Amino acid sequence: MKNLTFYHAGCPVCVSAEQEVLSFVDQSRFNLSIIHLGEKRDFMDKAKEFGVSSVPALVTEEGQVLHINFGASIDDL
Amino acid sequence: MKNLTFYHAGCPVCVSAEQEVLSFVDQSRFNLSIIHLGEKRDFMDKAKEFGVSSVPALVTEEGQVLHINFGASIDDL
Repeated sequence: MKNLTFYHAGCPVCVSAEQEVLSFVDQSRFNLSIIHLGEKRDFMDKAKEFGVSSVPALVTEEGQVLHINFGASIDDL
Repeated sequence: MKNLTFYHAGCPVCVSAEQEVLSFVDQSRFNLSIIHLGEKRDFMDKAKEFGVSSVPALVTEEGQVLHINFGASIDDL
C-alpha cells in the first residue's frame, strides 16, 4: 500500500474536492489519509515541507504535490 | 464504470500530474480518458463548457472540475 495524504481546511472547495478524491482513488492500493490543517496544526510544518502552498492538496508518498483547485492559501490557515 | 477525463497540453506540469492521476485512479471503476487539448482542438469547447480554465484538469462524469496545479491557461492553448 502506498500512502496518499489529502490536506484540507474544511472549506467548501476542500469538501467538494475531498468527495471526488475519495471516490476515484484506488483504496485497495493506496492508504489515503485526510488531514484537516485547521484542526491538526502539528501537521502544518510537514505540509509546508512537502511544498503545499494551498488547500486542498494531495501529496503522494514520493512527495509529489497536487494542488487541487484553490480553497485557501496555507499562510491564511 | 464512471467516466473521468484528464485534460492536458503536454506541458511538464501536465505530464507529471498525468502520471500521478494514472497511478491512483481506480481504473476498475473509472474509465479514464486522456485528452491533449493542443492536439485535439475539437475538445476545446467541451472543456470550456465544463469550466476548465487551465490544464491539467480532471473532469468527472458529473462535470466537477479539479484543476490540478497550473500548467497553462486554456486561453493560451
